[in-house]
Amino acid sequence: MPTGNLGIAPLDQSARPRDTHSDLTTALDLPSPYLLFLGDVDQKPFAKTAFGIRDWAPERCVGEYACEGNALSLDLPFMSPREARAKGARALVIGVASMGGRIKQSWHSQLFEAVEAGLDIVNGLHHRLASVPGLADAAAAKGSRLIDIRTPPKDLPTATGRKRSGKRLLTVGTDCALGKKYTALALTRAFTEKGLDADFRATGQTGIIIGGGGMPMDAVVSDFLAGAAEVLSPDAHDDHWDVIEGQGSLLHPTFAGVSLGLLHGSQPDVLVLCHQAGREKILGLEEDFLLPDLASVIDLNLVHARRTNAAARCAGISLNTAHLSDGEADAAIERVSQETGLPCADPIRGGARFDALVEACLTS
Amino acid sequence: MPTGNLGIAPLDQSARPRDTHSDLTTALDLPSPYLLFLGDVDQKPFAKTAFGIRDWAPERCVGEYACEGNALSLDLPFMSPREARAKGARALVIGVASMGGRIKQSWHSQLFEAVEAGLDIVNGLHHRLASVPGLADAAAAKGSRLIDIRTPPKDLPTATGRKRSGKRLLTVGTDCALGKKYTALALTRAFTEKGLDADFRATGQTGIIIGGGGMPMDAVVSDFLAGAAEVLSPDAHDDHWDVIEGQGSLLHPTFAGVSLGLLHGSQPDVLVLCHQAGREKILGLEEDFLLPDLASVIDLNLVHARRTNAAARCAGISLNTAHLSDGEADAAIERVSQETGLPCADPIRGGARFDALVEACLTS
Repeated sequence: MPTGNLGIAPLDQSARPRDTHSDLTTALDLPSPYLLFLGDVDQKPFAKTAFGIRDWAPERCVGEYACEGNALSLDLPFMSPREARAKGARALVIGVASMGGRIKQSWHSQLFEAVEAGLDIVNGLHHRLASVPGLADAAAAKGSRLIDIRTPPKDLPTATGRKRSGKRLLTVGTDCALGKKYTALALTRAFTEKGLDADFRATGQTGIIIGGGGMPMDAVVSDFLAGAAEVLSPDAHDDHWDVIEGQGSLLHPTFAGVSLGLLHGSQPDVLVLCHQAGREKILGLEEDFLLPDLASVIDLNLVHARRTNAAARCAGISLNTAHLSDGEADAAIERVSQETGLPCADPIRGGARFDALVEACLTS
Repeated sequence: MPTGNLGIAPLDQSARPRDTHSDLTTALDLPSPYLLFLGDVDQKPFAKTAFGIRDWAPERCVGEYACEGNALSLDLPFMSPREARAKGARALVIGVASMGGRIKQSWHSQLFEAVEAGLDIVNGLHHRLASVPGLADAAAAKGSRLIDIRTPPKDLPTATGRKRSGKRLLTVGTDCALGKKYTALALTRAFTEKGLDADFRATGQTGIIIGGGGMPMDAVVSDFLAGAAEVLSPDAHDDHWDVIEGQGSLLHPTFAGVSLGLLHGSQPDVLVLCHQAGREKILGLEEDFLLPDLASVIDLNLVHARRTNAAARCAGISLNTAHLSDGEADAAIERVSQETGLPCADPIRGGARFDALVEACLTS
């Protein structure tokens, strides 16, 4: 994950037509600006919601807040909910993406503090805000809203497999939390800057907060997984691109089912494989699940992708090099490009390599 | 699917220890005997719940019922809910496994009729019985229970990938509705008859009704898919077998996500691939999704299975030949065995070939 403000301008919401969205996808009108809450999470990958919002919607962030003693920081001004309210904040956003999506007991007092200060709370975890004892009453007394965004639309259909019109790109990963959302956002922006008609299609809590809509794939009842992905990127005109945020990894023992349902339902024409330089095993599990070579990962994704779109191809690799120096990053990118025979770039670093990756996506 | 009563004795419930079940799996005490309801479904694969209960729990079936004009039959006595009640039935079981699991409007009058006759209703579809307008009130007035069995336990964990003790077998398929449950039930019985300690682990509505417990995998929120599979087959002693009912197929554009989550979380030592002789494409979809050769299907399943159990192997093929004559079935079984180099049998036909398949499962 990138560190600090990398000079990325926010996505221009007005430039991304939303009228191709099906009525079934979640349409949101979230109260902003935000105070981003880190809880007691001290590892960046598990605070990826906060970092993602800071990087892609900085104009909507007034500050950060956390449990006492938490050293993790977004490099935003640290302030209490009361201070944030005085500076114009309208909501506290839970910026944590923990495994299983629980609202931890240790955050409760801060959530009450937010409500007392007159802030709404925006929550993308599986657990509902109303499950925090007394919070709903406290919010009602203050007129604050408790907003759970990880709520799939009702009456999702099962997937039909019918081939839809328009073009689709899906970011897939070797693991979680290494750049699938950032890559999809960066590619959407690059496509749009080239004058193409492109929509970012969010599939997780952070993407949905950034993009203002989408499908919380991992909250969908599993029978409807691929169906939800079909709903998320409906028929469009032939030159339209849906750039779909990937979820998890086919190699992840916890989340591969979500990844496969999304892959089948998305019917991608183009895959971009996302990886973090040097990551050798799945993050966050006690047992070691080693990652195979990238070519095997691409092959496995293509075998499944071609089940619903025979023309699916992998355009290249998006390599997260945020933890490397410029020289190390260049070398790592070159190594992956040589190893796979495909364009490779770090979208956050941009440059000619990223331009080449964008071209490879568009040139079939 | 087999037709008619094939002389299969019901599973001996008492022989299958349930104490290894985790508290999280669904424990059921269903009112029986049953009146099996076919609705207006006139294709056998979509009535597989009714056929499964008839074949594996015949002692709990007093008759069948259906919408007017439906020619599909279980070869049980056709009777109204009132007649069934008089013959001792305690519940009407919705015997339909439709795509997406909806309770159809055209069945409503029969459901009311059941409640009026004093029967409980057992429903394994996604849609809740209480969603039928007025049905809950009618049931309450009559003291009838509305039982929705496709309800996953609360507070499922996400999968950890931790390798569990004991042995596991998972039936996987080329498609839906071709014998994964029957194969798992037949193997459980064969293992038990050999004096082995074996549990049938149900993963779908029919299996749960037959077995009296299990995990409704396709109703689990997708983030918890593999976690639910881990809960379903907990640690056991080294010689214990869990025989797990597979779901869907990795090749199915609608349900592959469920199949992959179940495969990862089950950590099977042994796979048995289930196929129907002559089936060339996925059933029930408008577009043609052709099935590849069986060796490719086995390879794809093993690639994923070995992610959580490096020792996973495919023991053989279970071939559904219910629609073939004895001679045709023999030829088809021999052909598949030659093609794959693995034992192949139709468990419903049994015989020496099935004995050999059972041996191949047990001999590593």
